[in-house]
Amino acid sequence: MKAAIIGGTGYGAVELVRLLHNHPLVEISTIVSHSNSGKELQSIYPHLSDIIDTSFAEMDVAKVSEEVDLVFFGTPSGVSSELIPQFMEHGVKCIDLAGDFRLKSPDIYETWYKKTAPPSQYTDQAIYGLSEIYPDDVKNATLIANPGCYPTATLLALIPVLKEQLIEPQSIIIDAKSGLSGAGRSQSLTAHFSETNENFRAYKVAAHQHIPEIEQVLANESGVDLQVSFTPHLVPMTRGIMCTIYSKLTTGQTTEELIALYKSFYKDHPFVRIRPEGVIPATKEVYGSNYCNIGFTVDDRTGRVTIVSVIDNLVKGAAGQAIQNMNLMQGWDEQTGLTNVPIYP
Amino acid sequence: MKAAIIGGTGYGAVELVRLLHNHPLVEISTIVSHSNSGKELQSIYPHLSDIIDTSFAEMDVAKVSEEVDLVFFGTPSGVSSELIPQFMEHGVKCIDLAGDFRLKSPDIYETWYKKTAPPSQYTDQAIYGLSEIYPDDVKNATLIANPGCYPTATLLALIPVLKEQLIEPQSIIIDAKSGLSGAGRSQSLTAHFSETNENFRAYKVAAHQHIPEIEQVLANESGVDLQVSFTPHLVPMTRGIMCTIYSKLTTGQTTEELIALYKSFYKDHPFVRIRPEGVIPATKEVYGSNYCNIGFTVDDRTGRVTIVSVIDNLVKGAAGQAIQNMNLMQGWDEQTGLTNVPIYP
Amino acid sequence: MKAAIIGGTGYGAVELVRLLHNHPLVEISTIVSHSNSGKELQSIYPHLSDIIDTSFAEMDVAKVSEEVDLVFFGTPSGVSSELIPQFMEHGVKCIDLAGDFRLKSPDIYETWYKKTAPPSQYTDQAIYGLSEIYPDDVKNATLIANPGCYPTATLLALIPVLKEQLIEPQSIIIDAKSGLSGAGRSQSLTAHFSETNENFRAYKVAAHQHIPEIEQVLANESGVDLQVSFTPHLVPMTRGIMCTIYSKLTTGQTTEELIALYKSFYKDHPFVRIRPEGVIPATKEVYGSNYCNIGFTVDDRTGRVTIVSVIDNLVKGAAGQAIQNMNLMQGWDEQTGLTNVPIYP
Amino acid sequence: MKAAIIGGTGYGAVELVRLLHNHPLVEISTIVSHSNSGKELQSIYPHLSDIIDTSFAEMDVAKVSEEVDLVFFGTPSGVSSELIPQFMEHGVKCIDLAGDFRLKSPDIYETWYKKTAPPSQYTDQAIYGLSEIYPDDVKNATLIANPGCYPTATLLALIPVLKEQLIEPQSIIIDAKSGLSGAGRSQSLTAHFSETNENFRAYKVAAHQHIPEIEQVLANESGVDLQVSFTPHLVPMTRGIMCTIYSKLTTGQTTEELIALYKSFYKDHPFVRIRPEGVIPATKEVYGSNYCNIGFTVDDRTGRVTIVSVIDNLVKGAAGQAIQNMNLMQGWDEQTGLTNVPIYP
Repeated sequence: MKAAIIGGTGYGAVELVRLLHNHPLVEISTIVSHSNSGKELQSIYPHLSDIIDTSFAEMDVAKVSEEVDLVFFGTPSGVSSELIPQFMEHGVKCIDLAGDFRLKSPDIYETWYKKTAPPSQYTDQAIYGLSEIYPDDVKNATLIANPGCYPTATLLALIPVLKEQLIEPQSIIIDAKSGLSGAGRSQSLTAHFSETNENFRAYKVAAHQHIPEIEQVLANESGVDLQVSFTPHLVPMTRGIMCTIYSKLTTGQTTEELIALYKSFYKDHPFVRIRPEGVIPATKEVYGSNYCNIGFTVDDRTGRVTIVSVIDNLVKGAAGQAIQNMNLMQGWDEQTGLTNVPIYP
Repeated sequence: MKAAIIGGTGYGAVELVRLLHNHPLVEISTIVSHSNSGKELQSIYPHLSDIIDTSFAEMDVAKVSEEVDLVFFGTPSGVSSELIPQFMEHGVKCIDLAGDFRLKSPDIYETWYKKTAPPSQYTDQAIYGLSEIYPDDVKNATLIANPGCYPTATLLALIPVLKEQLIEPQSIIIDAKSGLSGAGRSQSLTAHFSETNENFRAYKVAAHQHIPEIEQVLANESGVDLQVSFTPHLVPMTRGIMCTIYSKLTTGQTTEELIALYKSFYKDHPFVRIRPEGVIPATKEVYGSNYCNIGFTVDDRTGRVTIVSVIDNLVKGAAGQAIQNMNLMQGWDEQTGLTNVPIYP
Repeated sequence: MKAAIIGGTGYGAVELVRLLHNHPLVEISTIVSHSNSGKELQSIYPHLSDIIDTSFAEMDVAKVSEEVDLVFFGTPSGVSSELIPQFMEHGVKCIDLAGDFRLKSPDIYETWYKKTAPPSQYTDQAIYGLSEIYPDDVKNATLIANPGCYPTATLLALIPVLKEQLIEPQSIIIDAKSGLSGAGRSQSLTAHFSETNENFRAYKVAAHQHIPEIEQVLANESGVDLQVSFTPHLVPMTRGIMCTIYSKLTTGQTTEELIALYKSFYKDHPFVRIRPEGVIPATKEVYGSNYCNIGFTVDDRTGRVTIVSVIDNLVKGAAGQAIQNMNLMQGWDEQTGLTNVPIYP
Repeated sequence: MKAAIIGGTGYGAVELVRLLHNHPLVEISTIVSHSNSGKELQSIYPHLSDIIDTSFAEMDVAKVSEEVDLVFFGTPSGVSSELIPQFMEHGVKCIDLAGDFRLKSPDIYETWYKKTAPPSQYTDQAIYGLSEIYPDDVKNATLIANPGCYPTATLLALIPVLKEQLIEPQSIIIDAKSGLSGAGRSQSLTAHFSETNENFRAYKVAAHQHIPEIEQVLANESGVDLQVSFTPHLVPMTRGIMCTIYSKLTTGQTTEELIALYKSFYKDHPFVRIRPEGVIPATKEVYGSNYCNIGFTVDDRTGRVTIVSVIDNLVKGAAGQAIQNMNLMQGWDEQTGLTNVPIYP
């Protein structure tokens, strides 16, 4: 199968290049970058020298549509809203790593993204590609809204316990931490080394655009119109997300019972690894891989459970899950091309 | 005034050396290190070369007691329990950076510290040296239990709002993050560079010995026997603590009102800096200094407030607050010797 | 083919596990760790959870020899000296990642390693596994002395120009910088996070045991008994080595001519990538991969060339090159199992 | 005394603010920032909140000249060339942290800086403010060209041995490494966290504008028109410079003799600390301070000495040395306001 990548200078796109290069069933035929069209990939990304000997192409919907079966979008927010309808008219399947098609409500989209919502006919048919939760929908999809990085780590950690009504839906607090690659390659003081190194900071407290995405899915799964507290932070490291999630237990589950529940829930999903009692996952144990590791601590004193979930934001939180979704759409084993071992140390 | 430092190889002690060297009213007369007695300070800590030309001394209570008016303890947990009673019999004032004398209940101490509690006559007279909250007690103290790093950041952020009954006491969740220097200088895999760099991890979830310390003070201030959820994390950086604190508001305070309350509460306490609306503090803005910066976000959607508090764990969270307490005990301006500007970047 | 790994808790060994897991023609049958025998790999290395479900074995030469065709040694210096003769008596091929069999002269070995040299019959037959330089010897080897990390980066950068007599042999200065994983997983103040983060230091100036290894190979290639200046440094990062090499040019080569020479020299060796004029390699562009990137700057003012060479110390500098050597020994394509793209960012 | 800072948003300027705030004899009366005039300092630099309660001023030479006796310039290259002549006409002393007035030859300046050289009457009278080497000239100066960061570390390490003719002047190789704060606060991919973290790179090989500055001083001190090899590198840390310097010894000095020579040479200069035999300085031991630490290793095998010199690039390499020069110009003790202990860890 041939695929194209649009928005090829971003970190999501370059991670797609890395992972797809070792995928046995896919060939990258075109990598489009508006800002760098005509330049060789290896002039921007020297790590690709002598591996990927192509240049960034200019955008040409008709030409790309003829060449490929599927397009990945690693474009900034707002761009795929305009391009995806064009590609879909040409019958090309689309996987969007941006947030444009994730929120079903145009009002909510416009409130949190401060942008015009995409045409609802496309939003309506977009499948939210949380691979482990909606594999059947993904298999039949033509347009995938690939989940955000924070929502991926959060939802995989919360859905089993919420579906089973073991936590109070309105008690959810998500304290999220991300490496800097989540902020992308564009330049800002936030991403400036001297401002960020040896520094830890919170941002967009209770105001991040991933909040409605998390709430939409949790509401669907629980049947409750819930609101979460969500604080993202930036860790002075490049890759990795940890979500530390607090919630009130409705009944007296033990840590052991929760572990058993999750092991059962994810037994057919090898990318979710449930940690044994007393073991809390760290971000480095999923570095460069598509795994999501989850650990639990029930605190009898407070009646709350603390769930810790880690992913590599560029893999399971972006490019890896996108490829996992492609695998499902094509009827392949979902692990195809994603079996590399995490890099450690 | 002459002072001694016991436990001189640890990071708390070496930070005392740094800060006391520039203190105009104190002279360090002895630095005791059991493991390095006889060695020059500069052989262990080359940054002190040609600045501090002394050697580590062996422990000698009688000798030290004769020389000094006050002793700082930077010893590991359990050591000051035995030494402080001896020094106090000699009439020497003591400031303990370890946790030995912080918890009033011997049972609670033994439960969380897994050690025998110190003699209750000393615990009873120990003053919890949270300088901004208990300045009058500190002024008259002969034994100071210097607060832990996490409790300092947490309590300064919570006491005003708790005292005013603006939050539900049982709704407090503290998500804490610390640089590695908090783990001390002793060797462990946790502190091993390759295991920690580019890694973010949680530890002692709901099990850290600072939990009862926080609860003891919050209970005193609120009159409610409360339990908090507390998760400490390690950030791949050396210095700095951030506590992100979530709590349910009892009434409809705005962010602006909370800021006004805190500015008023801390108006005579220059080391606590309240950040304006929309600004969340980062750890680097207090690097190397005795400041505690606090910011607020009220979330109308969830009815919760998020309070973010940052300190340098080795300064306000250890050696700096110890010196601030010494200043108060001696009747000096609490800022004496602590006016250095944070290092940035 | 079946292989065993001895010394399985070290970083070299765990990197072998990562790379061999994706190698299509090899199965790891045993991983021996003296210090952790009986424990599950994933209890020490959680990133391997649900991927490698075996436990560390105790050393048993006879048993391992029966099971496998080849053994990798990731043991500390001095251990393989004793074990490799035993395995070779059983007819098992050995690849030693340690330095025991690299130096042909027992005197030089004992001078620099402060250890008894291994039996000379084994040292004599050991092939120095610098894959791109000695592929034919490697193909026929039964015992490979896998090159050190610094020598690999240095020798690939120097051999072409030295063989062609374009530099003065006695003018070579190698300023080397390594990430901390090169120091291994054992605990020391050097590897302690707070001592190393935001710190840059030199060590073993003119005294590192890789000096005689570099000199032995350069002497062989040039026919000159030369001495090099070599200073290793530790960079506050986990992976990556850069060698910045200075040498006096004997004739007036241009940067362009040197690039052409190296491109030609390495034209059949895909893991060595020669950078274009004006481009200097950075360590991150080989992260997690088996590449060695080399760049050049001729300075007409001083008559010197500066050669910059980068590798991932755990891959091309250890486990990756070991697998490359195994591939050559087995008659396979040298790239088998090593085609993963560097991780960036 | 009153002083002004021009170029107040840069890291050099903000470091001047930090250090001058604790200087007992100077008051900062104005901080000029073209790009941020009118904004409060603490809105750009939150670490200064409640410490420095002023706003950035717009440039007004006449007004500033009336208010102050001395102006520090932390402006980008090329700006002080135009402003300093104006201030000097008003009789104001100037200390320039940029490179505009360091090179005596306008041709060399224009070759390396690619900018028009400043008026030669000012360049001629500018004193190169390497405080330990030219204290008498500095005392009588009205215009100080404050040395570059790399030249400071290099020259303090080389001048004693070069003056005594103990090394071959044409054999000098300087391998320099700097933290990222040396690249300033302006945004670039080089300073982008994800591109720089876990990365080590060389830049401007044999082409850095500090080369002619180093050569000019070394030529003056040795009487030889020499050329040096110089390679700067970026270390993934914020502060600190190490120069590892290689040179051929002319005679058979031992490490011990060199140490004795340097101790004698710098005996009246407390900011230069000579390390004992066998001890090599690390950057962290001068963090946040005005010290320069120097260590030596003579290698009998190669006949070369390796000198390692470390400074904090923002202190001794910029703002600290500028204040040291101001102290000398005012006839004060050169250590005034600069006695803070390095921050460790």
